[in-house]
Amino acid sequence: MTRVEGGITASAGFLAAGVVCGIKRRGKDLALILSEQRAVVAGTVTQNRMRAPCVDWARKILKAGSARAIVANSGNANCCTGRRGRGDTAAIAQEVSVRLSLRREEVLVASTGVIGRYLPMDRVRRGIKKAAAALSRRGSHSAAEAILTTDTHPKELAIRFTIKGHPVTLGGIAKGSGMVAPHMATMFAFLTTDARMDLSTLRRGIRSAVEETFNAITVDGETSTNDMVLLLANGASEAPPIREGTPAHRRFMEALKALCRYLAHEIVRDGEGVTRCMSVLVTKAADREAARQVARRVAQSLLVKTMVAGRDPNWGRVAAAVGAAGVPIHPEKLQIRLGNRVVFKRGEPARISRRELLAQVDQPEVQIGIDLGVGSASAHLTSGDLTEEYVRINAKYTT
Amino acid sequence: MTRVEGGITASAGFLAAGVVCGIKRRGKDLALILSEQRAVVAGTVTQNRMRAPCVDWARKILKAGSARAIVANSGNANCCTGRRGRGDTAAIAQEVSVRLSLRREEVLVASTGVIGRYLPMDRVRRGIKKAAAALSRRGSHSAAEAILTTDTHPKELAIRFTIKGHPVTLGGIAKGSGMVAPHMATMFAFLTTDARMDLSTLRRGIRSAVEETFNAITVDGETSTNDMVLLLANGASEAPPIREGTPAHRRFMEALKALCRYLAHEIVRDGEGVTRCMSVLVTKAADREAARQVARRVAQSLLVKTMVAGRDPNWGRVAAAVGAAGVPIHPEKLQIRLGNRVVFKRGEPARISRRELLAQVDQPEVQIGIDLGVGSASAHLTSGDLTEEYVRINAKYTT
Repeated sequence: MTRVEGGITASAGFLAAGVVCGIKRRGKDLALILSEQRAVVAGTVTQNRMRAPCVDWARKILKAGSARAIVANSGNANCCTGRRGRGDTAAIAQEVSVRLSLRREEVLVASTGVIGRYLPMDRVRRGIKKAAAALSRRGSHSAAEAILTTDTHPKELAIRFTIKGHPVTLGGIAKGSGMVAPHMATMFAFLTTDARMDLSTLRRGIRSAVEETFNAITVDGETSTNDMVLLLANGASEAPPIREGTPAHRRFMEALKALCRYLAHEIVRDGEGVTRCMSVLVTKAADREAARQVARRVAQSLLVKTMVAGRDPNWGRVAAAVGAAGVPIHPEKLQIRLGNRVVFKRGEPARISRRELLAQVDQPEVQIGIDLGVGSASAHLTSGDLTEEYVRINAKYTT
Repeated sequence: MTRVEGGITASAGFLAAGVVCGIKRRGKDLALILSEQRAVVAGTVTQNRMRAPCVDWARKILKAGSARAIVANSGNANCCTGRRGRGDTAAIAQEVSVRLSLRREEVLVASTGVIGRYLPMDRVRRGIKKAAAALSRRGSHSAAEAILTTDTHPKELAIRFTIKGHPVTLGGIAKGSGMVAPHMATMFAFLTTDARMDLSTLRRGIRSAVEETFNAITVDGETSTNDMVLLLANGASEAPPIREGTPAHRRFMEALKALCRYLAHEIVRDGEGVTRCMSVLVTKAADREAARQVARRVAQSLLVKTMVAGRDPNWGRVAAAVGAAGVPIHPEKLQIRLGNRVVFKRGEPARISRRELLAQVDQPEVQIGIDLGVGSASAHLTSGDLTEEYVRINAKYTT
């Protein structure tokens, strides 16, 4: 399993492009991805109830399970835009299908940006034309650029392994920044692979990978209206089909998870205003839901996030967040670790010097361990700190 | 019903003092409140599972229902301090009881500040001695000062009304700042009244008042380990006893709610880094819990809070928060208002000029209205904005 150049276009049979279409004030804002042959598609979408029409459109295609193209714009989420917004999503798919001689039902649409504004459809149409003409085997990077909003850099990776001597490649691009929390946040991840596999294998694979990666990150606890993770598998590799329960499938899943994990961590690291990450690991919980609830509460606590930002080993805030998670806690059984030091156990602060305490939080990624001491379930979340920069960015996003 | 000077010592038969005892680096940090005669006491405490020992101590006294004194320190929460912390809380009550010739079980103890550190008991003992000597009928203001942590000013009010010509007074002091969210946050409110009433009337009264006031505010969604609202009623007024169902009781409840509402709003207005408040009103929800969930999600959304800070009418963030609240939402039935303008209805943005939109959020208190259109339940929350100042304060609280 090796990293290769080329992102989503590293997988055989995929083309991509990213162009300036004028939705945003500056920069590329329209991405197009095409599979030269029919691909099976699986993915997950936001659980927000105020779904953008492009999410509903994607759900239909995901149900059918096959697609040829993804078109994505940044700068406008086309959400809360009613009937006109639904029409615009269909018109975008239509425009792409005409330009690329596809069926409209093979075109996935994704939009991200401000909510409650109509798309400038003339510009979008011109952008699609331009993107269709620019499609190339080296187009991944510009597509990765075109889906960004407040991200500071594109997120892109490709991984290759072999089955019986034949290379199989997985590639991905992603965007994140604000509104990033479990159950999909303002984030896209578009993944490609030339692996041959059937729809149900692909579906189970992406669900399991998302659960451990994109659903295990949080930037600000917000859940966006437009998020999607989409994986297209076009079978263009000459490797034999991948079946569940085989060594080839295990290697595919390993590569898929590594790809998703890389993109998910990139999203947190590049979260709005994030300067440092924290990793929250909850262990010995009564059940998985309790473990998750505690991890979420801690990873999303503003006081814990500002503590991480300030390199401040004020672990009492972790204890307070654990106690407020809404699950039964036994203070006498609880153990809290910062870095590799126990700071609280048996109901009392551990003996540890101030200097040692400070060293635990003066790390690029702060490790917070919470051992509830009651069961055997665990949960892990990666989160970013909360800085003045987050507030600056978000106090003036539309204006 | 009129406002009077004197805070908690405006009620007949109450003395108070606030002194410097040296827990904090500077300023008063120990408050003492004494009722000259036995008082009935009722109140509510934090729902955080990591309760400080002083909260458990208060729960016992609240169960018994009578008390004579409250001693409160700021600068150290005496939480997560195990057996030694429990001993310190009992020792504080003991010290006060000796100084004032009370029983230890009549002394409520409250601590606020950093979690996970032991109290400097020598200083605390000296402080109690000093405070006992300083108790006075004009001591409310210095007690109000002594309970503050990152608050910028003391919060104090007294209200007087008459029953058959006899004055009845209610007074209160409070502290808040960070960790303020429904179900008690880092906040104290100590309330006194000279009204004569029985324990069960007092208990029902304080519960109902807290529900509508202190439990309807949020600063940062955090729930602290140490919060309490305590109301002592010593019956020192010459007015006849107050019984439920009477006009006198209605006037008492009116005064109690006005007092709690004032202190609760002062807590939000003086929340860490808060520059502007928002009022979130959810109506036509399927049930009360759904209404509350939506109100909480919106009032605690970092993106909504930064929108308010930035005077930015980016109501799409409100829509996204509503959709992420975890309750069924029908976008076609949903109506969102900013100020007195509808900005979203029937699934679409309302026609409203940018200038008018801006005027809706350029208010000292931004009104956010969410009409779910499905039932008849409602909920209201007052919250503060999120500013760079909050992050600055909390990135360096202990260091």
